[in-house]
Amino acid sequence: MTDPDTSRLGIDWGTSNRRAYLLDAQGGLMRQHSDEAGILHVNGDFEGSLRQLLQTLGLQRADIVMSGMVGSRNGWHEVPYLSMEQPLTALHDNLMEVRTSLPEVRCRIAPGYKYIDANGIPDVMRGEETQVLGALSLSAANGWFLLPGTHSKWVRVENGGMIEFLTFMTGELFSLMSQHGTLSKVMTEQQSVPEAFAAGVQAARHGSFTHTAFCCRALVVTDMMPPDHTASYLSGLLIGTEVYDILKRTDAPQQSAVQVVGSPALSARYLSALELLGIEARAWQPDAVYLAALRALFSP
Amino acid sequence: MTDPDTSRLGIDWGTSNRRAYLLDAQGGLMRQHSDEAGILHVNGDFEGSLRQLLQTLGLQRADIVMSGMVGSRNGWHEVPYLSMEQPLTALHDNLMEVRTSLPEVRCRIAPGYKYIDANGIPDVMRGEETQVLGALSLSAANGWFLLPGTHSKWVRVENGGMIEFLTFMTGELFSLMSQHGTLSKVMTEQQSVPEAFAAGVQAARHGSFTHTAFCCRALVVTDMMPPDHTASYLSGLLIGTEVYDILKRTDAPQQSAVQVVGSPALSARYLSALELLGIEARAWQPDAVYLAALRALFSP
Repeated sequence: MTDPDTSRLGIDWGTSNRRAYLLDAQGGLMRQHSDEAGILHVNGDFEGSLRQLLQTLGLQRADIVMSGMVGSRNGWHEVPYLSMEQPLTALHDNLMEVRTSLPEVRCRIAPGYKYIDANGIPDVMRGEETQVLGALSLSAANGWFLLPGTHSKWVRVENGGMIEFLTFMTGELFSLMSQHGTLSKVMTEQQSVPEAFAAGVQAARHGSFTHTAFCCRALVVTDMMPPDHTASYLSGLLIGTEVYDILKRTDAPQQSAVQVVGSPALSARYLSALELLGIEARAWQPDAVYLAALRALFSP
Repeated sequence: MTDPDTSRLGIDWGTSNRRAYLLDAQGGLMRQHSDEAGILHVNGDFEGSLRQLLQTLGLQRADIVMSGMVGSRNGWHEVPYLSMEQPLTALHDNLMEVRTSLPEVRCRIAPGYKYIDANGIPDVMRGEETQVLGALSLSAANGWFLLPGTHSKWVRVENGGMIEFLTFMTGELFSLMSQHGTLSKVMTEQQSVPEAFAAGVQAARHGSFTHTAFCCRALVVTDMMPPDHTASYLSGLLIGTEVYDILKRTDAPQQSAVQVVGSPALSARYLSALELLGIEARAWQPDAVYLAALRALFSP
């Protein structure tokens, strides 16, 4: 597999989407391809879906490293979670080989991580560990790394290793509540309203989300907020809820900047919330971070 | 309307359901009728729906007092919210007359309440104020009154008056998350599992609901909890989230028992959660409470 004709390909294979990164010999990005062949959309035919992807990219020989939900119970092959005692360098050593009928293809899946907190309650990640590996190979930062999304992850790093992480169902709850239930009824015509977002972030301080979400409705029915501000307010509430939860867990959260790795649009919301609360933050471009992770995973 | 042939009828007219209580001359219950003609199901024809109800009950002359969402913007007639400065006795004086073409019918709607908390954030109720009025005419209790439901209400009472209240979207979020999203996928075959419920109540202490809800999923994917325990655990998380939020707001929550006014099945869950957390509670039968409220609203 050290043949120079063998292409190195990284695939971030998630629930809904798939992103492929073709590397050049120096580990730079040669080509990027995204499609909607997430694990829920391939009808269990992972090999067929991969073959198609290789055809699209014009590849025959390939050394492939995959991360994300492709390694979950509902993915191609379940890869056991690593525990927090295993450093991120263990990702490289624990890539799980998947057999395929593709003759000149080597195919491996990165494991996720499982974290059991001090109360014995578990949290899990699949895919984000690869992003953290990449971010840490670009930056020696300590403190909180934030990976926003359907399930936002906050990862606390010390001395180059993950020491805890927490997931928040932020994107999923926003989506559920926009489509169904009480708030969805006023969320038909929505604007992006920075002051409503900011008000939501501030209000998150004043109680649990299951309460503050109802207050969002109360603001509308008492004519204290226009209905078309609801989405921005709800987004602020959900993101504010994350930040206040983290603040409660950390004595000195502002000690070092929060490192945000996410799409520009989503990262912008978190950066705005963090700024409102006086917390320093730095944004990372997720493709650059993923490429850095791939270089670490492919290197011997 | 003081004609002894005029029947006194109370209607708790909510979003999905309608419950009617026909009183005898002494204010006792003569007949109770429930149907699904909630305000969302009558296509705006409130008078026609009321006429049908009167036919069902065999009534021609009636003095009717209604409470609940029938007085909301999407109901029959919007009745302005009372503010917290107005005592519950003001409900009687602020019943809003609704004109109908029914010749021998007097029809009034009780207002709801609006509460603006110390942070300037509003909460609202419509219908529960009537239950609190009833409960207070049966009991001189102080402290928290709890009215569980789609939108659970916690009402703090001092010296026979409401001084604050908070709503939690507990029932709505349980329903949303059971039908849609990540957790719903493992919630197809569910049992009622007291120990999973208790574990959820305890886990609610350890973070915001948007985080603990994801941990519920993590418990399943790490094989630390069977999938069919998910509903009970989620129910415990949501109810525990309410109780911990209330505990944070009150220096001495156990000073007096929590007065629970709800259906037996729902009340049982809250009583179990409160007992787990060492909080005294007392359950009230909601029909008896509503009848007591009607007696207060009909009395001159």
